[in-house]
Amino acid sequence: MTATLVLLRHGESTWNAENLFTGWVDVPLSEKGETEAKRGGELLRESGVLPDVLHTSLLRRAISTANIALDVADRHWIPVRRDWRLNERHYGALQGKNKKQTLEAYGEEQFMLWRRSYDTPPPEIELGSEFSQDADPRYADLGADLPRTECLKDVVARLLPYWDSAIVPDLRAGRTVLVAAHGNSLRALVKHLDGISDNDIAGLNIPTGIPLRYDLDADLKPTNPGGTYLDPEAAATAAAAVASQGR
Amino acid sequence: MTATLVLLRHGESTWNAENLFTGWVDVPLSEKGETEAKRGGELLRESGVLPDVLHTSLLRRAISTANIALDVADRHWIPVRRDWRLNERHYGALQGKNKKQTLEAYGEEQFMLWRRSYDTPPPEIELGSEFSQDADPRYADLGADLPRTECLKDVVARLLPYWDSAIVPDLRAGRTVLVAAHGNSLRALVKHLDGISDNDIAGLNIPTGIPLRYDLDADLKPTNPGGTYLDPEAAATAAAAVASQGR
Repeated sequence: MTATLVLLRHGESTWNAENLFTGWVDVPLSEKGETEAKRGGELLRESGVLPDVLHTSLLRRAISTANIALDVADRHWIPVRRDWRLNERHYGALQGKNKKQTLEAYGEEQFMLWRRSYDTPPPEIELGSEFSQDADPRYADLGADLPRTECLKDVVARLLPYWDSAIVPDLRAGRTVLVAAHGNSLRALVKHLDGISDNDIAGLNIPTGIPLRYDLDADLKPTNPGGTYLDPEAAATAAAAVASQGR
Repeated sequence: MTATLVLLRHGESTWNAENLFTGWVDVPLSEKGETEAKRGGELLRESGVLPDVLHTSLLRRAISTANIALDVADRHWIPVRRDWRLNERHYGALQGKNKKQTLEAYGEEQFMLWRRSYDTPPPEIELGSEFSQDADPRYADLGADLPRTECLKDVVARLLPYWDSAIVPDLRAGRTVLVAAHGNSLRALVKHLDGISDNDIAGLNIPTGIPLRYDLDADLKPTNPGGTYLDPEAAATAAAAVASQGR
């Protein structure tokens, strides 16, 4: 058995464009983000990598990216599954804050620790504050699972149960699975797929809007470790740009 | 127990605008159709009728209408179920034909029989022809169920199993259910809900883009027979316009 998994990071959001920490704040795509999503759909169509089922987070920027890309690829009609476990990392009290100002206020070391350390989350967000999700109906069933901040280790811990219970069964059924999600939920998934260490995952950036295909064997291990971008040249250029974010 | 069901007919498609029989041909919304979908979402938001789950057909004009409306209503994150049984009536050999030219070629009586009789389908579409769906991957599992033409009676027959097996369980679970679909699949559903006779259903037109709310009792009978449009004035105006279509 081989299975095909396609990862798609959402295009630029309005808050990416304004250089704000976003996390679970549900901001829309920018116009550039919509264009990236269209390009993602063209790459799916041109390469003939046609998803049979879609998994998304509960956040608009991933949902819109998938809707746009699948419409372009003529796969708008496939089944959809959504889950909070595919959400972006919760950025805690940093949500809504400017990245450049945060860098200046806290210094390079603390800034990079929050952005890239595996197990140091930002300070918790205050319940009831402007960018908290405690009153959001889509998370009403989470109870104590609702995060107030997360490090990447936390994202791995809440993502893997969804991988095992929802995504793996679709792959085992022979479906081509598209996961439309976020920088950190996709890094968590790639860490698991490629067996990347807690240290090495810090250096991995996934570009936006470029589908990343994994061919998986019977044990769901990649036969193409690291995956294959449907536009490798654009991916290399974009990854370099992401790495310099906040500077 | 009471349950809330909301029906939403897709906004104008490019082929509505060109006055062509569409059926199962998967055309996109026109700009006017996108505006109607936004307005539908505003009505949901303003009235506080917030869907917990979405059911759509496999056709882009219903899917896009739902995506746009739910995004505006901030309900883009709800679960989605799609099924061919919610598709528009298959218009057989008339698919792709101009309504006015068809009226002129076949005369008023035959034209109205195809459009509004309960049990007279148009001629069957030719397999492999331009507007046939026999090679469409989304219908690959249908086998002999794939229609080559349909009258409204056929639509009722293929819709009701989906109503019973997929929509009713969501209503019984207390969810507010949004069904985003088509003129004839929604007429079939309304016929069932309101117990409309085979003759009287001919006179029923459902306007586009205006959510129609049904409050259902424990037997899933409407406590508001005929339903309640979220914008009754616009619904009355639009229904009159639909009735004169093709003239």
